[in-house]
Amino acid sequence: MYLDIGNALASVATPGVSRASLDRLDDRVARAHERIVDGIDDREFGYASLALPERTDAAHVEETVAPLADSEAVLTVGIGGSALGAATVSAALGRGAADAHVLDNVDPQGASEVLDALPLEETAVHVVSRSGTTAETLANFLVVREAMTEAGVDWTERTVVTTGEDGPLRALAEEHDLPAFDVPEGVPGRFSVLSSVGLVPAAIQGHDVAGLLAGGRAGREALAPSLYDCPAYGYGAVCYALENRGATTNVLMPYAERLEYFAEWFAQLWAESLGKDGLGQTPVRALGATDQHSQLQLYRAGRHDKVVTLVRPRDRPGRAIPGTDIEGLSYLGGSDLGTLLDAEFEATEASLAAADLPNVRLELDALDAEGVGRLLYDMEVACILAGELMDVSTFTQPAVEWGKRAARGLLGGGDFAEAEAVAGKERLEIE
Amino acid sequence: MYLDIGNALASVATPGVSRASLDRLDDRVARAHERIVDGIDDREFGYASLALPERTDAAHVEETVAPLADSEAVLTVGIGGSALGAATVSAALGRGAADAHVLDNVDPQGASEVLDALPLEETAVHVVSRSGTTAETLANFLVVREAMTEAGVDWTERTVVTTGEDGPLRALAEEHDLPAFDVPEGVPGRFSVLSSVGLVPAAIQGHDVAGLLAGGRAGREALAPSLYDCPAYGYGAVCYALENRGATTNVLMPYAERLEYFAEWFAQLWAESLGKDGLGQTPVRALGATDQHSQLQLYRAGRHDKVVTLVRPRDRPGRAIPGTDIEGLSYLGGSDLGTLLDAEFEATEASLAAADLPNVRLELDALDAEGVGRLLYDMEVACILAGELMDVSTFTQPAVEWGKRAARGLLGGGDFAEAEAVAGKERLEIE
Repeated sequence: MYLDIGNALASVATPGVSRASLDRLDDRVARAHERIVDGIDDREFGYASLALPERTDAAHVEETVAPLADSEAVLTVGIGGSALGAATVSAALGRGAADAHVLDNVDPQGASEVLDALPLEETAVHVVSRSGTTAETLANFLVVREAMTEAGVDWTERTVVTTGEDGPLRALAEEHDLPAFDVPEGVPGRFSVLSSVGLVPAAIQGHDVAGLLAGGRAGREALAPSLYDCPAYGYGAVCYALENRGATTNVLMPYAERLEYFAEWFAQLWAESLGKDGLGQTPVRALGATDQHSQLQLYRAGRHDKVVTLVRPRDRPGRAIPGTDIEGLSYLGGSDLGTLLDAEFEATEASLAAADLPNVRLELDALDAEGVGRLLYDMEVACILAGELMDVSTFTQPAVEWGKRAARGLLGGGDFAEAEAVAGKERLEIE
Repeated sequence: MYLDIGNALASVATPGVSRASLDRLDDRVARAHERIVDGIDDREFGYASLALPERTDAAHVEETVAPLADSEAVLTVGIGGSALGAATVSAALGRGAADAHVLDNVDPQGASEVLDALPLEETAVHVVSRSGTTAETLANFLVVREAMTEAGVDWTERTVVTTGEDGPLRALAEEHDLPAFDVPEGVPGRFSVLSSVGLVPAAIQGHDVAGLLAGGRAGREALAPSLYDCPAYGYGAVCYALENRGATTNVLMPYAERLEYFAEWFAQLWAESLGKDGLGQTPVRALGATDQHSQLQLYRAGRHDKVVTLVRPRDRPGRAIPGTDIEGLSYLGGSDLGTLLDAEFEATEASLAAADLPNVRLELDALDAEGVGRLLYDMEVACILAGELMDVSTFTQPAVEWGKRAARGLLGGGDFAEAEAVAGKERLEIE
């Protein structure tokens, strides 16, 4: 992992952070590092997430899903942290031996389209819910189970679950003798990607699960008591410093289509962990080079309330651009799409700096299992460090409960005062 | 189109807009309305976009692509406004008679994956570039052309173009007698969806092109000199008022997976049109219900610098949730995924209001051609009104030129001072 924060310095950008301020901040990083390492070693709630690369047993994951290893497709049924990690890993590593799909919404049209497209008799289903009662996930699972039964497929032969010790999903797994993983203890959903939650589809696709975990371990070994010695801490610290100086939005802009889902995963990690007490950067998902033709005008000419995080692999497969004698295009011919993409990466980085907008460069060696494992681990570290520096409760998400109770009340799942607030909505309707 | 701005009022939300302020603002809306209508009637640059529903000839589009109407797939080669509209329409209306794909990046891995998956001999290609020299688009087209030739497919039989009067793409179309559309005069790319730019793939998919245009015409007919009488103006005006009061971020959160691309299209429209002079809301793309489990914590507990725009169709196809006797889940069984999704929509809306965060409800009758055409047209109107109220140059995008020149210089396409700035980058590297 390589980090370059030169374009976030006050000498380049507004807002920017001075080297003197970074030096002062580094004392707090050293103390936070001790707190984090102690938390990992003691398997404290939340911090325990950073022990997953050591705790997760790749061979156990692979053996458990071995009966499903010849599937043509794998469907994750979950929502939020129970789905985004798996989708991110599968997208980053490519198709492999099976297509990966996700049901992480309750859109009737979307669900029907996914189910109609799947070869159900060759599809492995991974249902993920800690409580076993998540409304969206269980509703989808009931729909999937029925679709399989109607197609003459024995769903008990095609389903694996990850859930807590108790609850309806655990009971179901025991009743039907389904392969089942425990959700890792002390790990909030959005930090669970390096457990079965994120790795089961990858294992079924034949991806290098051990490599993903090795990447995470490399991130663990890279932890050091200074932001100047550890890219994950460097990134978390500079985001914290820039937020305090006015960069209340963090645009994550990978230059690799396979990392488009990674931007979604990062957005959950950042928003749900740090969006507290009136603080927290708003994560914005972008994609290079595409969004240069959509968002760059705003980034350069709009408010200086953003930092843009540019991400790319240093090495990527090529695709030659054929030579051409078309006038005005000959400079493209004989080059490679990757060369063009990298030139646009560097041009965009420089164009943001020329507009005084802070930006940061994050690079991984390659989009392989170790690279992806390291990237995910380091972003978790960066998030946890930022949370320490901000003094927020990184590992909880209390503000989402209100809406869950309201929805449950509306659906007749109990009496909740929140459901009554829905009916009292203030209206100003324009048709 | 139905708009409800009750939850954006100062009596509910912080920031919020008072009814008295809206009344005062309405005088300016009336004047802006006159400006806009004059611009449409005179086909002035930019405003001419709002005349597209009358100007575009559905039968002409359909006849021109008729030789490709039996294609199994349609591939749009373009970037930014030359691709997003087409992708949005095709996603909103579903697969139809052909799969829709887009090459709107220059990722070598992504391009290879798309080309490997396409049945090239049954694929229609629509190449879109006003200048005919857009680097990304032309590089991709060279790659597609070569792939077709290597597969033994006559690319001249499978390609249609939309381009300007001159340039390499026009010359190529003339040389090979390709079906060709003119880019509509006076219409910036991001406002071009209701022309051939956005409609060619839909026509090949067999979607109701005339219906899309009829939806746009309904939007034109709904223009009225008061924000209280025209939902498009109501939306533009309330976004303007909220931005001035601190809502510098606009989260667009459709509750329909088919509108996920619409959020991308809106993000370009909003960012590139209004991101000027240090102004412009940052568009954030979200998706309900999924992002309740990702972003809602931040929206409710983070900074009050956002308005959340919730979008849904009033009518949608259903998907029954099978009954179940699993304890704790029986309230879900026998319901419908759509009922659950709508309950989550209303619960989220109320939960934002309970946290004093401004939010707006936008509804369309259904996700059909007329509904989609109306939605796209009304958002363009809202954007243009906001630009009038902000006194910015809605129809230009000067800030993106710097990076284009830098990239071209880096690729050896000429001498540009911007390319030299890339080499002078300030570095602070952490490994």
